[in-house]
Amino acid sequence: MTLAAKILQGDRMSLARVLTQIENETVLGLQALNELYTHTGKAHLIGVTGPPGTGKSSLVNQLARFYRGLGEDTPKRVGIVAVDPSSPFTGGAILGDRVRMRDLAGDKDVFIRSMASRGSLGGLAVATSGVVQAMDAAGYEVIFIETVGAGQAEVEIARLADTVLVVEAPGMGDDIQAIKAGILEIADVIVINKADRPGVETTTHALRSMLQLAHPNSHLFMDSGNSSYSHSNADFFAHHEAETDTSGFAENPKIWTPPLEQTVATEGIGIADLARTIQRHYEHLKESGELARRLRVRVETQLDVLLRERLIRHWQSQIAEEQYRETVDKLMRREISPWQAADNLIDR
Amino acid sequence: MTLAAKILQGDRMSLARVLTQIENETVLGLQALNELYTHTGKAHLIGVTGPPGTGKSSLVNQLARFYRGLGEDTPKRVGIVAVDPSSPFTGGAILGDRVRMRDLAGDKDVFIRSMASRGSLGGLAVATSGVVQAMDAAGYEVIFIETVGAGQAEVEIARLADTVLVVEAPGMGDDIQAIKAGILEIADVIVINKADRPGVETTTHALRSMLQLAHPNSHLFMDSGNSSYSHSNADFFAHHEAETDTSGFAENPKIWTPPLEQTVATEGIGIADLARTIQRHYEHLKESGELARRLRVRVETQLDVLLRERLIRHWQSQIAEEQYRETVDKLMRREISPWQAADNLIDR
Repeated sequence: MTLAAKILQGDRMSLARVLTQIENETVLGLQALNELYTHTGKAHLIGVTGPPGTGKSSLVNQLARFYRGLGEDTPKRVGIVAVDPSSPFTGGAILGDRVRMRDLAGDKDVFIRSMASRGSLGGLAVATSGVVQAMDAAGYEVIFIETVGAGQAEVEIARLADTVLVVEAPGMGDDIQAIKAGILEIADVIVINKADRPGVETTTHALRSMLQLAHPNSHLFMDSGNSSYSHSNADFFAHHEAETDTSGFAENPKIWTPPLEQTVATEGIGIADLARTIQRHYEHLKESGELARRLRVRVETQLDVLLRERLIRHWQSQIAEEQYRETVDKLMRREISPWQAADNLIDR
Repeated sequence: MTLAAKILQGDRMSLARVLTQIENETVLGLQALNELYTHTGKAHLIGVTGPPGTGKSSLVNQLARFYRGLGEDTPKRVGIVAVDPSSPFTGGAILGDRVRMRDLAGDKDVFIRSMASRGSLGGLAVATSGVVQAMDAAGYEVIFIETVGAGQAEVEIARLADTVLVVEAPGMGDDIQAIKAGILEIADVIVINKADRPGVETTTHALRSMLQLAHPNSHLFMDSGNSSYSHSNADFFAHHEAETDTSGFAENPKIWTPPLEQTVATEGIGIADLARTIQRHYEHLKESGELARRLRVRVETQLDVLLRERLIRHWQSQIAEEQYRETVDKLMRREISPWQAADNLIDR
């Protein structure tokens, strides 16, 4: 029996092994993914991003516990992928892992995986996609993609999800506030965690103002029919522009206004409400056709990264090391520019 | 006369125009860069990164003023490239620009350029390289490459420099401390700005401990002869491992221990000492051969990004839109995996 077949039968150990293979980009990992991919598409992918110190790990743990049966619904199987794109250096454990282990260890329907960056950001996104797809095929129904920070790398990882939570907390400095606007543009739900802290009204007010800045095209109806042939990052970044509105969700199911939810994750406060909002967003995605549109963007982005990787490998296998080295030497002596060097190498 | 020729004669307006062309990746911009590239290599490139709120802009302004003649040395011409990789959305102005303008406006030997992200991180790095190269050719002797945050994107941009300053400040939260270790690994000089604030001793002590974690291979001598044929990001990330040491700079010029410098940028305190340390690092780079090694890594990285870009464009021009669309549709229906899709498309 193949590893993939064992995973489809629910074997955790095989899943763990395949995830390692996927992270290391081995042939075995790719073969398993090819087999597993046709079984994906059932999980709800939830991205969680936001500045450090806002309690993202605790929030994910509480949500995971909720989905595991603390809520009114049927317990769901939960996957957690914790990604640290800012640590390309150590590959060490993710923040908050110990807390996580204490809360969720021993539950065989929870699967947790930490990933550190390796190489390029595009590579990390593809590896994360692979890990999420394997968990999806393995029958995990809710999969969290959690990042440690809120830079561009984290934002791109969080975008691999269907629903993006941006987590904030009262009392962050002014400078941190100033860089928030960009993050808010990708938020489907904004969570103000640590809402028992002083300053929560100020933070809520500030976030509301910023939301309006981040979504200037209010009262725009979402156009889900304009998914054109394009696999540029610009498109990837731009697709949120037209889909949100700062008012009127109730009137039209195609419009989604990112709601603000207050939580105190460490006490479990606000978790049930947040889970309901997440579910409402998932329904919205399906009803509006936005789910398929986001999937298409993701698929095209992943394909683009893979194509680039294969093209450069193919090209490298055909060019002599000496030619490359000579060109770099010329560059070092500033006889030609990098652009001329690239053209020369490609022309051969 | 070409734009490039005018720039070499010192025409600021032509430089401004070419920088816009470079940012927009126009043919005109590339032509100018090809012409300018042979005149580069004279400037000392100083990267400035660190968490938001540490006063990076003020620090760069003060250093710029110092180089402009407040110090004991001959005034130097100063370029500043302020990059915001975390704002792919708005393309708006960089934090602290107003302060900057007030301090440095009207000095014709200071040239300031703000850049927001456009598209991919690799693209931003190449565009930033281009802007820096044009300034270098135009005769700016010290060029700062300043980023707003300290995520992976910022780190990669800061690495475009010869000397990397990592700016910290007392009183940052514990969570922010926890993600610092990765940033410290790329530091040539650590600046504790706002050193008049309470907690400066704690921060200094914490940074010293982290430095030892970040540079575990202490007492390793730098090996500058192992620049192999490789243009992977892994190599780009790994090259700091063997070059630093947490002790003994004085005994061997090939070893550089990242020193900690305290400043209060808003008051101009510590700026002269910091400038001297930066100069000492520059001498070290030249004497140890590390300057050439870093240049080689940069050149190879830039070439790699350009090669990938050209290869994908070439490939796109050869494949029919319909083939691509069919493949994406199959992917959406989960009939094939992204890896199979990439292989299929490349095989044609």
